[in-house]
Amino acid sequence: MATWSLAAHDLVREELDQMQAVLDHLAGSRVPLLARACRHVLDGRGKRIRPTLLSLSARAAAGDDYRPSHDAVLLSAAVETVHVSSLLHDDVVDGASVRRGRVSVNAEWGSPISIFTADYLLAAVFQVLATPENVELLRGLATAVMRMCEAEVLQASSVGNLDVTEDHYREIIDGKTAALMSTACRIGALAASTESSRATRLAEFGRAFGMAFQITDDVLDIAGNAEEVGKPLGSDIRAGYFTLPIIALRNGADEATAAELRALLGRGTRISDDVVAEIAASVRASGALEYCQRVAGTYVDEALDHLSALPASEARQALEALCRGLLDRHS
Amino acid sequence: MATWSLAAHDLVREELDQMQAVLDHLAGSRVPLLARACRHVLDGRGKRIRPTLLSLSARAAAGDDYRPSHDAVLLSAAVETVHVSSLLHDDVVDGASVRRGRVSVNAEWGSPISIFTADYLLAAVFQVLATPENVELLRGLATAVMRMCEAEVLQASSVGNLDVTEDHYREIIDGKTAALMSTACRIGALAASTESSRATRLAEFGRAFGMAFQITDDVLDIAGNAEEVGKPLGSDIRAGYFTLPIIALRNGADEATAAELRALLGRGTRISDDVVAEIAASVRASGALEYCQRVAGTYVDEALDHLSALPASEARQALEALCRGLLDRHS
Repeated sequence: MATWSLAAHDLVREELDQMQAVLDHLAGSRVPLLARACRHVLDGRGKRIRPTLLSLSARAAAGDDYRPSHDAVLLSAAVETVHVSSLLHDDVVDGASVRRGRVSVNAEWGSPISIFTADYLLAAVFQVLATPENVELLRGLATAVMRMCEAEVLQASSVGNLDVTEDHYREIIDGKTAALMSTACRIGALAASTESSRATRLAEFGRAFGMAFQITDDVLDIAGNAEEVGKPLGSDIRAGYFTLPIIALRNGADEATAAELRALLGRGTRISDDVVAEIAASVRASGALEYCQRVAGTYVDEALDHLSALPASEARQALEALCRGLLDRHS
Repeated sequence: MATWSLAAHDLVREELDQMQAVLDHLAGSRVPLLARACRHVLDGRGKRIRPTLLSLSARAAAGDDYRPSHDAVLLSAAVETVHVSSLLHDDVVDGASVRRGRVSVNAEWGSPISIFTADYLLAAVFQVLATPENVELLRGLATAVMRMCEAEVLQASSVGNLDVTEDHYREIIDGKTAALMSTACRIGALAASTESSRATRLAEFGRAFGMAFQITDDVLDIAGNAEEVGKPLGSDIRAGYFTLPIIALRNGADEATAAELRALLGRGTRISDDVVAEIAASVRASGALEYCQRVAGTYVDEALDHLSALPASEARQALEALCRGLLDRHS
């Protein structure tokens, strides 16, 4: 478990444990290989950041005397499963062989199994949420999935394009990451409280949090520590995704350095660990890292601002701490 | 449009036209490439067999004075989109370059676009069905998708296995094809009539119809006419899927012929058109084709038997004709 999110987890540990039981249920299939693949990805190695956001948002919206309902636990399982399902397709697209510190489903059982396991889990989420009480929340989650897919298509169609703009990058991470985190916060709040203005605030919080989260994630992929991160560094540049650290590096480079960078990054999947280390060093030396921290910091400030509109509570405090911790995370 | 299904289409043409408007709506995305890929697969070249089953089932359940509701049209669009979404993932898994007589999405824009377009469409289906009135039907559709994925995993894990049994094959096509057709019939009936016994009968009809449909589809893939079918023949054996015609051929072969067959089929994707023609000739000469027709005929009889429990109507007649036509279809 990542240290930056430990305090937040502590507050919602009971709900996360209950959620695991729902995940185990979702992973059940009469086809043994499918059940095995589902368990492989839902077994509890993730940071559980989206369910944590959802549970804390429920508490922050309802106040400290909030007691989680069965539906809230179900929703947590749903957002985590949607996330895991998207990772399964990402790993196929990227040909990733490691995920969360262990072998990926596509590497273990092949891409077809990864593709259909993801589809199965997505359908299972909508199946368990298909009750009259949850129908609004189900619609919100479906919309988030649509946003995620749109972002994936945007990302896929700019693979290998070093001229990608910062605006384009922001649009991608907004859909890829911020949309689901925003939805997690919103539906958590809606499940716990009838105060719709709080749900709106928490949705905005979640979006800004998601933007900061993804930027720090992209920084870790190039300038982090592989062991702490749980997967090899440089996966983005190998896949041809040029994220904020690279965009900032390119924007600040003179023509000769930019041409050099272009030549290095043009190698795609054949980019060696040494090249990754070299680019990481440039990112550090050029001030691109500080730039990323500043941009992430802007989103953290925005997220904190939204939180400040909510009544004080232990949960709000935990969300604040989670948010501030983003700027200092290592995994 | 396939001639065997023309009469049935005529009866529900208006609903199919209305459905196309919903499909056009589902294909809308603010990401141009995604919208283009969605339109590419939803533009009306399919046989529309699932929406036709759904609309006819609604009429057969409600009687000839039935007038289709907006929800029924929505449901038709939903089943068609679920089907198309599954084809997109199938084509990635099989590396198929042709679908419905034109280039596949994966061949045109790459596998990532195909994968995320499918996910987008699946989420869009659940988004539009997320209303309190449709929640039961949404759950039914989600369950069908889960069954389809289970079948895909079963199929993927027996790729290249010539010892696959007929029972295993039936289990695969039950999930892969019959489940969604059964669901289409059931939710069509439920949307139109409160007589749940009719929905149950139509669900059973749809399952038996789906089994017969897939068997005749598998026969066409090896012994059909490529132009009429709209894709190259032999795609199943090239992908390592051994369907009923091949299983029947193997079951009836002596040891030497079986060994020969094994050698031919072991070539996988490198199976030439000549080898496909050679195997098709063996399927015809060996009586395997007649065997497949007999098995399909059993399911057709079962399907007709379920229909006979419904009140007489034009729609019931059209379903009967559709069902009988399966044994004689060329596309």
